[in-house]
Amino acid sequence: MKSKIAVFTAPNNPITLNETHFSGLKEGELLVKMRCATICGSDIHTLKGIRKEPAPTVLGHEIVGEVVDIHPETIPEDLYGKVINIGDRITWTIYASCGKCEMCLKGMPQKCEFLFKYGHQCILNPDHVLSGGYANYVKIEKGTGIIKIEGSIPDYLISQVNCATATISAAFSRVPSPNGKTVLIVGGGMLGITACAMAKAKGAKNVFLVEKNSFRAELSYNFGVNRAFILTNEYDVISEEIKNDTDNKLIDIIIETSGKKEAIEFGVNNLAIGGHLALVGSAYPQPNISISAEYLLRRLATIHGVHNYTANDLKTAYEFMIENYKKYPFEKCVYQDMFKLENINEAFNVAMDEKFLRVAIIGS
Amino acid sequence: MKSKIAVFTAPNNPITLNETHFSGLKEGELLVKMRCATICGSDIHTLKGIRKEPAPTVLGHEIVGEVVDIHPETIPEDLYGKVINIGDRITWTIYASCGKCEMCLKGMPQKCEFLFKYGHQCILNPDHVLSGGYANYVKIEKGTGIIKIEGSIPDYLISQVNCATATISAAFSRVPSPNGKTVLIVGGGMLGITACAMAKAKGAKNVFLVEKNSFRAELSYNFGVNRAFILTNEYDVISEEIKNDTDNKLIDIIIETSGKKEAIEFGVNNLAIGGHLALVGSAYPQPNISISAEYLLRRLATIHGVHNYTANDLKTAYEFMIENYKKYPFEKCVYQDMFKLENINEAFNVAMDEKFLRVAIIGS
Repeated sequence: MKSKIAVFTAPNNPITLNETHFSGLKEGELLVKMRCATICGSDIHTLKGIRKEPAPTVLGHEIVGEVVDIHPETIPEDLYGKVINIGDRITWTIYASCGKCEMCLKGMPQKCEFLFKYGHQCILNPDHVLSGGYANYVKIEKGTGIIKIEGSIPDYLISQVNCATATISAAFSRVPSPNGKTVLIVGGGMLGITACAMAKAKGAKNVFLVEKNSFRAELSYNFGVNRAFILTNEYDVISEEIKNDTDNKLIDIIIETSGKKEAIEFGVNNLAIGGHLALVGSAYPQPNISISAEYLLRRLATIHGVHNYTANDLKTAYEFMIENYKKYPFEKCVYQDMFKLENINEAFNVAMDEKFLRVAIIGS
Repeated sequence: MKSKIAVFTAPNNPITLNETHFSGLKEGELLVKMRCATICGSDIHTLKGIRKEPAPTVLGHEIVGEVVDIHPETIPEDLYGKVINIGDRITWTIYASCGKCEMCLKGMPQKCEFLFKYGHQCILNPDHVLSGGYANYVKIEKGTGIIKIEGSIPDYLISQVNCATATISAAFSRVPSPNGKTVLIVGGGMLGITACAMAKAKGAKNVFLVEKNSFRAELSYNFGVNRAFILTNEYDVISEEIKNDTDNKLIDIIIETSGKKEAIEFGVNNLAIGGHLALVGSAYPQPNISISAEYLLRRLATIHGVHNYTANDLKTAYEFMIENYKKYPFEKCVYQDMFKLENINEAFNVAMDEKFLRVAIIGS
């Protein structure tokens, strides 16, 4: 069988379209036809060389697919225990894990000893040629958590669920309930906007956003934000405004999605007594952050590192999106034109101008 | 009525012995005769000017007292609901809180809006002349959590329960159970040694200590430590040894009691995947710590600021000490000679040489 694959070879080089052959499925494996794959910020970081990935690789991990083949000895079930059949529309964890190693048993399957990550594998391994979303077909590995998508939610809205939404679900699973609290989201990309909506849906009293792009700041008001602070260069000015807005109590829960050194430091310095900061955006190299341990101690503050998520977080994310995609205009986050695989470089160009939070590649 | 009080006026100045008058008790208040008050590391920090306290003040917050007077309209109960009577030997929370403000209602009474802290109040307020342990008498404020001490545990062992032990209890209440885990304690003062014993008592698989003083490192082997690393200047060397000792898995739970910048950074860099670091020692100014947010994120690590404790932590600490003071030789941590209040400067001199973790002042 044959599939087109869009191959990333090196930072700042165009992605090239190749055709690859692949042999049949092994026990536990499924084949899906890519229906939609959205461009995640981390794909852009990889293309720009801000983060390092093995190459050559097929990028793309936010994927919706249709099951076209199942290994004959496999009766796959989704995370809700529903049997998966050919023709089903599915999303899945961005990784496959063994379920048996120390990390899996400790509840951190995203750190599995035998971790396989969609959109992150070197395709020189012939077993991994269909590992990324920017391709006609994707092979679903054994040990992947799958969800059968119910209802009519559009592909381009559900595709991000297994990355942006699930990561934010993981962040909220680490911090206390936002109910009645003041929540600050730093960075208004797809992670940040999702965090705003999720904080609001979970009953936050106030949802603040800090974002440098005024278009994104404006957009956030559709996602439960009470006040969006537009960042020029002056974190100090925003800190003063937050003091005023919160009667000097500062922020109970901060979800930091930008990964920027100054943004994290600003977050730490705005934590309320008993406050929690989730680091969600720091998945790429930045200079060390410089923070006061005494401040953390006297504030009884907590900092959480959040990377990827568990199958349970994917379920929470899926349920959140199904319940809320009509309540919050997530469609406004996606560029109106969808791109075919052939036009992936054009798609990345649009994605890089930061005006749209997601750009979608669609299957043919 | 009269009481001798030992007054701290300014850093690096001798403590002076004064006599003060005080009027009767108000509703909810008790008067205790000081039986024993131990010198805490933070008292030394204050005397040295490393941390700033209001002055003049009566230092001393690790206190065991005997109830000598109770306001006639008050029927005090301890944290276990036992009625407190004249003649009872008691310990109590190092603070009094209102129980009604936002911080109290949020479960952080140590950050009460109307916080009163024993051994930390300016005595120019006539209501606070008997607020510290280095005095013949201490007035127990309304809103203090009291524990009636049962059995025959010596004063000089139980006095630290309301500071060192309770703070370590608070730290362990924030991190996951040490059962079966590798725990590293940084700093082998009273907090650190207590943390070693508590980690061991809670079932830790390995208890490591990092400490610069070889005497303290040696002592720690009596408190459940498997391996004490003596710190010269080479954190990197210790990091390598920890890698070897843990098969590269590093440390699940770190209790940092030194507050030193380099020690905290070393701690962060030795966190296992899913590891937790409790900052317990950072109650005084130090240069900012410089850490990698990406490392925290990819390690799914958590950093907790721990300052003081709740009444529940004091109960846990008390129960720990009653259960374990014969199992671990806590008496070895206390200088063999007890000092009278008159000799408090001599007592501080002994305490400052760091060989003994606690030096006790006893009531006359």
